[in-house]
Amino acid sequence: MATRATDSGESMAVISLTTDFGDQDEYVGVMKGVIMAAAPGCRIIDLCHRIEPQNVAQAAFMIEAAYRYFPSHTLHVLVVDPGVGGRRRILYAEADGHRFLCPDNGLLARIDQTAGLKQIRQVTNRALFGPSVSRTFHGRDILGPVTGFLAQGNDPAELGSRLQATELIGLQGWQPRCGADGRLHGRIVAADRFGNLITNIGADLLAPILADNPKVLLRIEIGRQLTAHLHDAYEEALPGTALAIIGSRQTLEIAVNQGSARDYFQTEAGRSVTVRRAAESGGGG
Amino acid sequence: MATRATDSGESMAVISLTTDFGDQDEYVGVMKGVIMAAAPGCRIIDLCHRIEPQNVAQAAFMIEAAYRYFPSHTLHVLVVDPGVGGRRRILYAEADGHRFLCPDNGLLARIDQTAGLKQIRQVTNRALFGPSVSRTFHGRDILGPVTGFLAQGNDPAELGSRLQATELIGLQGWQPRCGADGRLHGRIVAADRFGNLITNIGADLLAPILADNPKVLLRIEIGRQLTAHLHDAYEEALPGTALAIIGSRQTLEIAVNQGSARDYFQTEAGRSVTVRRAAESGGGG
Amino acid sequence: MATRATDSGESMAVISLTTDFGDQDEYVGVMKGVIMAAAPGCRIIDLCHRIEPQNVAQAAFMIEAAYRYFPSHTLHVLVVDPGVGGRRRILYAEADGHRFLCPDNGLLARIDQTAGLKQIRQVTNRALFGPSVSRTFHGRDILGPVTGFLAQGNDPAELGSRLQATELIGLQGWQPRCGADGRLHGRIVAADRFGNLITNIGADLLAPILADNPKVLLRIEIGRQLTAHLHDAYEEALPGTALAIIGSRQTLEIAVNQGSARDYFQTEAGRSVTVRRAAESGGGG
Repeated sequence: MATRATDSGESMAVISLTTDFGDQDEYVGVMKGVIMAAAPGCRIIDLCHRIEPQNVAQAAFMIEAAYRYFPSHTLHVLVVDPGVGGRRRILYAEADGHRFLCPDNGLLARIDQTAGLKQIRQVTNRALFGPSVSRTFHGRDILGPVTGFLAQGNDPAELGSRLQATELIGLQGWQPRCGADGRLHGRIVAADRFGNLITNIGADLLAPILADNPKVLLRIEIGRQLTAHLHDAYEEALPGTALAIIGSRQTLEIAVNQGSARDYFQTEAGRSVTVRRAAESGGGG
Repeated sequence: MATRATDSGESMAVISLTTDFGDQDEYVGVMKGVIMAAAPGCRIIDLCHRIEPQNVAQAAFMIEAAYRYFPSHTLHVLVVDPGVGGRRRILYAEADGHRFLCPDNGLLARIDQTAGLKQIRQVTNRALFGPSVSRTFHGRDILGPVTGFLAQGNDPAELGSRLQATELIGLQGWQPRCGADGRLHGRIVAADRFGNLITNIGADLLAPILADNPKVLLRIEIGRQLTAHLHDAYEEALPGTALAIIGSRQTLEIAVNQGSARDYFQTEAGRSVTVRRAAESGGGG
Repeated sequence: MATRATDSGESMAVISLTTDFGDQDEYVGVMKGVIMAAAPGCRIIDLCHRIEPQNVAQAAFMIEAAYRYFPSHTLHVLVVDPGVGGRRRILYAEADGHRFLCPDNGLLARIDQTAGLKQIRQVTNRALFGPSVSRTFHGRDILGPVTGFLAQGNDPAELGSRLQATELIGLQGWQPRCGADGRLHGRIVAADRFGNLITNIGADLLAPILADNPKVLLRIEIGRQLTAHLHDAYEEALPGTALAIIGSRQTLEIAVNQGSARDYFQTEAGRSVTVRRAAESGGGG
């Protein structure tokens, strides 16, 4: 272990973990063991381990919504990795004072859009990997040891050579847009534990539709149709009725007060959503 | 960060977290990130994040059963919050050498009954909240930052003005009682992972029925009827058969050795339970 | 608290926890509270809390696959305990530079086979237990306090008297073997979150069948029959097709690329698996 590993800086290293490993197996615990063995003083926070298996988009939206609430310089490690054992790259990058480590499959695409990735490197230095590298569990054999290396305060330049953001794999089909008819087209990125339907339609994209009237009626197609103005709190709607709200990710969210919008609308993550002003035939703004 | 935040007292601050956030979303991780950003040296222990959505009673009984096993001065933070974004108060309180932070909706009612709440304050000091406060995620925007403030060793007096315990929202319909006919009337407060049915009928309430004979036959109505004496260990019953026992919360628990009492009795949390002596027509003690 | 509890050695104590407690109740959190109260500086890592209720074999294979990835001297605490409250012993043991604490019911049988248990002790010193010991929750009342005692750096000799490995309860029916006909007979030890079927047939046992040809066709009976050579990565198979691979536990694993082998083969943990060379009528190497 390097000398710098024992200084006080290292002891404050914070790591967030996001995976699709679930909690029924040893995978998350083993990865933490590997990290802790390399960087005994680090602090590991679970962001989420129940990303749907191999659902890169779900994780990409989640980390973009979450990273800024962690301490600056947190190392966010993501392992949602359909290509494990194949030729996909492993990436290190920085954005907005935070650090990221993950496979190159679109996981950082949202952060690149909103904050811009910098200091991107392809992780290729095998001297930093575990003593043997399986083809099935790079969280343990590559990302875990590299996390420990970085948590000790070592220089990311040792990971491998630089990449440009334009060289990274993107996230296709997940960019919300305003159509020629003024309708907003987006998708449900997650249905949360409460059945709230979280969309990728940001408050900024909605602003032109709302124009000068935050209480304008919206017509929202989300499986079935919901006509509603934006509410300010769940409890403003009667129990059991649906509402639209700007949720905690600062995006349009469809909820049912004290109920489940997922059940109410019988829909799920991945489905499309459109929004227009209800009062006009052709749409908003 | 205040000077006091770096002294050794702060580095030992222990926080327990209990929520209905589940583990499929970023909510718990984000809240921990916020706490860790404010109080880098604190230790966060998850008590439970799978409280049924908005089931205040389940959480109130759980925290009362659990808090005393944590280090003294632990700050127990509970976020089960059907009224988020509305007018409900947020509370700080102390009891039995422990500290508590949660919405005012009955979450501390059980602890007030058994240990008595002291130093109660309404949390109103907006200077301690996050930089912006959403209407949907006060765990992140209010309770998280306030937790960090307290974990740094700051004075609860800065949170807001004092309240009396009598001003708090109670927990209606969850008080076990002994009826005029000598029967005990209670409820199932939780069905645990093993299918054990945990009631709110405490060992103290059972004592008069048992009288001088701890092996007296009891008639227990819990969906269907169980006639049994109190067992001392699950394995005293034959595998697959039902038994009554004083469980780890020191309350009456109905279990099936190596099986599930929830399935056996086809019942669930919230249902009523009655207990009387089996040998007598009119009931106990 | 003993003087040694505050030295720097204690502050680095690492504990892994493996239980069948699940995450819907307070059990894991309470056990951590007890440990933290006794050993404030320790680091607790969850290995897994979703062992199937009372499935000792699942936990025994998991801990054997996982322990070596943790820092040396980690104390691995396992609570899968069908005999809680009865006469079963509680054990402390050491193996391969790691430490283990658990009920005596086969949980350490796999580690004894591969690494050899040493320094085995029966935990009987009631002075180290909690202030009262229930018959239903020894994780809180015995294993938690004893974990705290050991995490403080205290001497295991104080736990109780020595035992020989031959005196411990074994794990019956879970030893893979090569039959007289050259077929390998094993079992599925776990179906993981991805539906991968993890067997107890180690790479070493397969080696004679593979002989000099790592791409020899194998005939694998696992509910239905799979004829395949060993793949090197999941993505070598077409999406939706089944493959055989040496998994992260260094054992034979049956997977479906981007799908679930558990669903594909409609099988589950505990079922038998046989393997032979496909080209020959009577079997392997």
